[in-house]
Amino acid sequence: MVNDTALETLYKTVDQNQDDYVERLREAVAIPRYEARDIGCHDMDGVNLQLPPIILGTYGNDPNKKTILVYGHYDVQPALLEDGWDSKPFDMIETPKGQLVGRGASDDKGPIIGWLNCIEAHQNADIEFPVNLKICFEGMEENGSEGLEELISKEADKYFKDVDAVCISDNYWLGMTKPCLTYGLRGICAYKVAISGPGKDLHSGVFGGTVHEPMTDLIHLFSKLVTPSGKILITGVNDDVALLTDAENQMYKSLEFSLSELHSAIESKTTIFDNEIETLQHRWRYPSLTLHGIEGAFSSPGFKTVLPAKVTGKFSIRLVPNMDPNRVNELVEKYLKDEFAKLGSKNTISVECLHGAKPWIANPNHWNYVAASNAVERIFKCKPDLTREGGSIPVTLTFQDALNKNVLLLPMGRGDDGAHSINEKLDRSNYVQGIKLFGAYLHEIASCKDE
Amino acid sequence: MVNDTALETLYKTVDQNQDDYVERLREAVAIPRYEARDIGCHDMDGVNLQLPPIILGTYGNDPNKKTILVYGHYDVQPALLEDGWDSKPFDMIETPKGQLVGRGASDDKGPIIGWLNCIEAHQNADIEFPVNLKICFEGMEENGSEGLEELISKEADKYFKDVDAVCISDNYWLGMTKPCLTYGLRGICAYKVAISGPGKDLHSGVFGGTVHEPMTDLIHLFSKLVTPSGKILITGVNDDVALLTDAENQMYKSLEFSLSELHSAIESKTTIFDNEIETLQHRWRYPSLTLHGIEGAFSSPGFKTVLPAKVTGKFSIRLVPNMDPNRVNELVEKYLKDEFAKLGSKNTISVECLHGAKPWIANPNHWNYVAASNAVERIFKCKPDLTREGGSIPVTLTFQDALNKNVLLLPMGRGDDGAHSINEKLDRSNYVQGIKLFGAYLHEIASCKDE
Ligand SMILES: [Zn+2]
Ligand SMILES: [Zn+2]
Repeated sequence: MVNDTALETLYKTVDQNQDDYVERLREAVAIPRYEARDIGCHDMDGVNLQLPPIILGTYGNDPNKKTILVYGHYDVQPALLEDGWDSKPFDMIETPKGQLVGRGASDDKGPIIGWLNCIEAHQNADIEFPVNLKICFEGMEENGSEGLEELISKEADKYFKDVDAVCISDNYWLGMTKPCLTYGLRGICAYKVAISGPGKDLHSGVFGGTVHEPMTDLIHLFSKLVTPSGKILITGVNDDVALLTDAENQMYKSLEFSLSELHSAIESKTTIFDNEIETLQHRWRYPSLTLHGIEGAFSSPGFKTVLPAKVTGKFSIRLVPNMDPNRVNELVEKYLKDEFAKLGSKNTISVECLHGAKPWIANPNHWNYVAASNAVERIFKCKPDLTREGGSIPVTLTFQDALNKNVLLLPMGRGDDGAHSINEKLDRSNYVQGIKLFGAYLHEIASCKDE
Repeated sequence: MVNDTALETLYKTVDQNQDDYVERLREAVAIPRYEARDIGCHDMDGVNLQLPPIILGTYGNDPNKKTILVYGHYDVQPALLEDGWDSKPFDMIETPKGQLVGRGASDDKGPIIGWLNCIEAHQNADIEFPVNLKICFEGMEENGSEGLEELISKEADKYFKDVDAVCISDNYWLGMTKPCLTYGLRGICAYKVAISGPGKDLHSGVFGGTVHEPMTDLIHLFSKLVTPSGKILITGVNDDVALLTDAENQMYKSLEFSLSELHSAIESKTTIFDNEIETLQHRWRYPSLTLHGIEGAFSSPGFKTVLPAKVTGKFSIRLVPNMDPNRVNELVEKYLKDEFAKLGSKNTISVECLHGAKPWIANPNHWNYVAASNAVERIFKCKPDLTREGGSIPVTLTFQDALNKNVLLLPMGRGDDGAHSINEKLDRSNYVQGIKLFGAYLHEIASCKDE
């Protein structure tokens, strides 16, 4: 049973100390070395600089308590005032509407400082911390989390050994008013397809009409991958997509999402579906295929009468349960080679999978989710949206695979926070309520009857 | 009747003075300001420099003689030793095999110095010059002949008024051993097709599957333009292509051309046709369509999960008689818009014709060609190949349209001269025989019975 009185005290403490917490976030935003590109190993001169540290920490070690691992990242996207910010990106300000504006305020310093504030609030309020907490805060997330996977595998049986569940706070509410728990992410298979013909670029006047043009072949192949309405045409690829159940379909009906929000996000009305539910289902639980571009063809402004000798098309498929990257690779390679053979071209093809990541889905009925859901009801007086995302957050899969524990994505910020954009913000209320949410979530975990 | 004795004397004079002529070509190659980019109006800082002069000159003014206009250009492509030249590009050398190697040796200083040598040889041999000669040597050919068309129109009724026929020496033999006269060039219509959707580039994970992707639309449209075997699919575009007559087909049988030469030129065996005749016909007398590339999509090495907001495809169609650029534009625009409508996309399309140039074809039975053909037989003891070219030489059409006179392309160099490439060369024998050829051509003109 959750001690409601203790929680009320905790909330009061958080409210009373909120200006201090905001100040700490301001300090965190101001630390310029948190921009990983400045200290990462990807410097332009090829010098191998040291990776920024992955911060591990343990708070509490009581065998009678659950152990919860929280993940966040302290590195941020680059930001310059000249990019168009209304204020200096590393000097966090608060707007009259209570928005904390600064690079990293929402992605992802708000959440990580929030976890630390949550510990401190318990100390200030003199309330026993309900779980053993382990933190894992990295500094390379915006650069592919280099070094993290190795560390997690290496420490799976050591530092991470007693973890009972994982909580990642590095995504966003679906909309602006209703909190969510996120239980699924799409995976990805990324490909390049190279078509080679002549040994060098040719003049289209001299050779056009007499040689098999690699660009023509590639365009024909690409046109056979996906329809303009988004249907993937690769034989067999859709076969493993999990069927939509009634229960799942039902869940979509209560989500805080409107097409008009989507239209303003994409700055056009060029959406395929005319309703919210199909739109979200095609973002979250159906695969998609995007043609990203072509390397080796003429891509500059202006015009050039070139007949490119070798062109490399790039595309990717977003994967959903129960698609498997290896199986998708087989299907894609076979399909492309079969279709290429039908073209009757003397050019040559090569297909390469650049990257594969499985889709991720968690059981939203697990105690980790139930606790989070109860905590949302406590703080926000409503049931959270149960959401998935169309993109991937690779660390989610890494933790799940390495630790084999339930992973929960519990966002702090709103859908319009503008992570990676100019004027990134975190609403003060999201920050303060978020700290309370983290606390309530941990207390709910401590009291839940599991296993 | 041609005075054979006078011609024999002329040939001897040319042979005797050939080292002087080579020296003059060496001097011409050495003049660095002949690189038009250095003096043209296209400088990098946007400063409007003066155009290099177009050199006009008249030699002879006898109303009883024909007046022949010869065109050439004294500007050259840029060249740096670092590009891979075996010798300094502006210090012309002669190899042991008798190749004069230097930038511009063949394109196009050899021919223009050749015309001047031809005049001088007549003076040295004390032979009456058989025609009135007018020269038009420009210095912007490699940069689009800026300023030339205006001058030709302006002077059509003045300087160019009495011209009876035009001779352009700025192309090449089809092969390495047999001279040719060139009587046709393909035209071109160049297009860009822009497909716009979202207001900004999107993340393919978040939005893939829910929005109409401009890249997918463009790929589908592009796939409907041309087949992998080069057949143009645009409704009506092939209707105006002149039918191949038996006589024309016959002409292809004697041409000096082999697929193996073509294979070494393109550094692959990816030709569409397995025989020389169809190959040349599709280079010269059938249209072709090349997809050049796409602006706005991801075109760098590596991978990026971008869903491009606006993509602009570039393609061009090579035109042949009796295709008309305006008619082709209409057909292309209608076809693209019809096909786009079939896609059912909410994106928008715009089609723009960037450039249109008519195909050019001359009557190879005109006295200008007959004279040149006879001259070739005199010098090379064989009938010339009658060739066309797949690309365009815009000045050809400009002269024909402005002066309404027969235009002949009479090349001096061989097919392997490497204009625009490193180690550009002109064989000494082509240079020396070329000067004789120019002379014999003018004498044949003087004696031909025309009109
Ligand atoms: Zn983040
Ligand atoms: Zn030239």
